[in-house]
Amino acid sequence: MKAFGNGFVVTPWEVEGEVDYEKLLAYFGVDRITDEMLGRVERLVGDVHPFLRRQIFYAHRDFNVALDEYSSGGRFFLYTGIAPSKGPMHFGHLVPFLFTRWLQKAFNVNLYIMVPDEEKYLAKKVDSLRAVDERVADVERIISALGFDPDRTFLFRDREYIAHLYDAAVVVARRINYSVARAVFGFRGDTSIGLVFYPALQIVPTLFERSRSVIPCAIDQDPYWRIQRDIAEKIGYKKASTILSKFMPGLDGPSGKMSASKPDSTIFVTDDPETVRRKIMNAYTSGQPTVAEQREKGGNPDTCSVYKWHSLFTPDDEELVDIFSDCRAGNLLCGDCKLRLLKRVQGVLDEIRENQKNAERNLKMIKYEGELATRMWDWKFEYD
Amino acid sequence: MKAFGNGFVVTPWEVEGEVDYEKLLAYFGVDRITDEMLGRVERLVGDVHPFLRRQIFYAHRDFNVALDEYSSGGRFFLYTGIAPSKGPMHFGHLVPFLFTRWLQKAFNVNLYIMVPDEEKYLAKKVDSLRAVDERVADVERIISALGFDPDRTFLFRDREYIAHLYDAAVVVARRINYSVARAVFGFRGDTSIGLVFYPALQIVPTLFERSRSVIPCAIDQDPYWRIQRDIAEKIGYKKASTILSKFMPGLDGPSGKMSASKPDSTIFVTDDPETVRRKIMNAYTSGQPTVAEQREKGGNPDTCSVYKWHSLFTPDDEELVDIFSDCRAGNLLCGDCKLRLLKRVQGVLDEIRENQKNAERNLKMIKYEGELATRMWDWKFEYD
Repeated sequence: MKAFGNGFVVTPWEVEGEVDYEKLLAYFGVDRITDEMLGRVERLVGDVHPFLRRQIFYAHRDFNVALDEYSSGGRFFLYTGIAPSKGPMHFGHLVPFLFTRWLQKAFNVNLYIMVPDEEKYLAKKVDSLRAVDERVADVERIISALGFDPDRTFLFRDREYIAHLYDAAVVVARRINYSVARAVFGFRGDTSIGLVFYPALQIVPTLFERSRSVIPCAIDQDPYWRIQRDIAEKIGYKKASTILSKFMPGLDGPSGKMSASKPDSTIFVTDDPETVRRKIMNAYTSGQPTVAEQREKGGNPDTCSVYKWHSLFTPDDEELVDIFSDCRAGNLLCGDCKLRLLKRVQGVLDEIRENQKNAERNLKMIKYEGELATRMWDWKFEYD
Repeated sequence: MKAFGNGFVVTPWEVEGEVDYEKLLAYFGVDRITDEMLGRVERLVGDVHPFLRRQIFYAHRDFNVALDEYSSGGRFFLYTGIAPSKGPMHFGHLVPFLFTRWLQKAFNVNLYIMVPDEEKYLAKKVDSLRAVDERVADVERIISALGFDPDRTFLFRDREYIAHLYDAAVVVARRINYSVARAVFGFRGDTSIGLVFYPALQIVPTLFERSRSVIPCAIDQDPYWRIQRDIAEKIGYKKASTILSKFMPGLDGPSGKMSASKPDSTIFVTDDPETVRRKIMNAYTSGQPTVAEQREKGGNPDTCSVYKWHSLFTPDDEELVDIFSDCRAGNLLCGDCKLRLLKRVQGVLDEIRENQKNAERNLKMIKYEGELATRMWDWKFEYD
C-alpha cells in the first residue's frame, strides 16, 4: 500500500472548488479512516479496495466498531440505494455501488439495496409515478449487472415492499419530530408532507437485522443517518455505521462534480461508445497550452479531471503513480492519458453490458428468489 | 316530520357551552342541511333518520350534489373510520356509526371503514403499536356487531392494507405542502413526521371509487376534507361530500361533550349494566331542587343532558315531543325520565351484545370475504 502513509497522496481531492474535506470532517463530526484501519481491513479480508487506499472513501462513523464486531465473529450488513430520478444512471452512481460490491465480497455479508420509487416524485423532481417506474426499470437492470451476490443481496422498491416497511417506518417516524427533520433535510413550507415522512422509510432497512448496518455514501449524506443513530438503540437496534466518500469529480474541471444535470461532466451507463470517447477526449486537463511546453514543464495532475478519474478507475497503484509521475515529468501527454482512461471506462461499461445478458435472472434472484430475498419477503418488523 | 319546519326544534343543541353552531356554519364555510333537503331525502329513500330530522347532523358540503347524482342514477359511497386510542368505544363513537348504517341501508351504497392503527401512536396518544393492536381488536368486534351490509362494507386497518393505500397516498401527499397541513392540523415542531404524513393516508379512501364519497363526521373535522377537495379533481376524482354533526353531548352537564377522558360523560360499549345504570341515574338534569317544585314549575329540557340523550336514542318523534312537554309541564320527573333513557341505552347495548354472537363471521365478511372486501383486496390505485 505504497500510495498512502508516506505523505504522498495520489488522489489530491482535498480541495474541490469550495470543498475542504479536512474541514468537512469537523463540520460533520465524523472520523477520518486511518492507515491503521486500512491495515486492519487488509488483515481481515486480505485486500483493500483502491477507493479506500486512495481516500476516496475517507471518513466514517463507527466503521471501526463494525470491524471490532466482525473480528470477534459478528457480522455487519451493507445498505445502500438509489432514488430513480430523471436521467439514467451515471458513473457518480456507479462508484458507491462498485465499492459496495467489493465490501460485500470481501466481508461476505448481506446487502440491502433500496430503490425509493417515490422519493424524487415527492421531492417534485419527477412529475409522475409512471415516469419514475420507467427509470426504476433501467436502474434495476443496471444494478442486476453489477454482480452482487445473488443469495446475499435484496433489492426492493419502496412501493412494492411497503407492506413490510410500514410498521417499522411508523415506529421510526414517531421518534422524528418535524423540527429535527427540517433542520437536517432543509424542509420548507412548500415541502410535500410525503417528503417530510420519507426519511423514516429510508431508515427502516437499518432495522432489517439486529446486527450493525454499514452504509457507504457521500459525506454530505451523513446527517441523514445521524437521525437513525439517535433512534436505533432506543428501539433495540444498533446505530448505523457510515463509510463516507468525497464528492465524485466531474470530467469538466477542477471544481466540478459529476452530475446528471451536466451531461458532459460524467458518463452515463447508457452512453454509446462514441459519446464516451467524445466526453473523455474533451475532458478538462490542467496540462500546458502546447505539447512542447507540456514536455518541458510537465502537467498538473493535482487539478486534472482526467487524473482524478484515473484515481477511480485505474486500480493498480504502481500504474497510477506512474501516470502521476509521467504527467509531472512531461512524459505523458494529455491525449494519451485520456486514451488510457477511455480504455478503463470502456472496461467498466463492457463488464456491465456483458453481465446484462444474465440480468433478468440476476434481478429475479436479488428481488425475489435468492436466499436473502426469499427471506425478506417473509420479514416482518417486530415491535413492542 | 312534525319535529322540524315549524320553528319548534326538539333538540336544542344550538349553543353548547361556548359552541354556537350557527356561527360554526360561517366559520367553516359549510351549508346548513335545509328542510328542503330533508324532504328530498325522504322522497328518495322513504325515510329520514332522527339524527337528520333533529339537526344533530345539521350541516354539509355538497351533500345536495351527491343527492343530485343519486337522483339521476349515479351512486355515492360512504366513508368513515375510527382511530383506536386508549379507551374502549363509547356512545360518542357509536352515533356516527349508527347514522352511517342508516345511510348505507337507505341508499344501498358501499361503505369503507378505515381503522387507522397508526394515527394515535404517531400522535403520541398511545405508547406502543401493540397497545393499539389490542384496541383495534375491540373496535373491530364492535363495528362488526353494528349490522353493516356484509357485501357492501369494507373495513381495513391501515398497516394491514398499506400496500394498497401507499401509491395513492404518495400521489396525494405530493400535493399537500407542509404549510397547508400545519395550518389545517395545527402541526408543530414537536409533531412527529409520521403524523405529518398521515392526512394523505386518510384521504386515500375517497379515491377508492370514481364516484363521490360522502363522509359523515363532526363539524370540526370538515377542514381535513377541504384538503381532499382541493386535490381530488386535479387527479381525476370527485370532491368529497361531508355530512356534519354537532358535538355529542355528555351526560355530565349542559356544556359537556362525550369524552373518553371523562368516563362519566358517556357510556362505554363495554360498561356493565350496573355501570350504565349508575351513569344515567347520576346524569345531569336541569330540573327543580325538589319534586314538589318540579311538579309545580316543570323542568328545563333545553339545558338537560338526559333530554339531549333522549333526542339521540328515542327515535319516535311523538314520544320525544311528549317527553319535552311532560318535563316542561312538571308531569315527568327526572328519575322516571332517566329510567326511560336507561331502557333506550340498554336497548342499543343489547343489540350490540346480541349481534356479537355473529361478530366473527360478520367481521370476516367486511374485512376479507364479502363482495366489496374481496374486490378491495384486488384494488390498485391507477396513477399517471
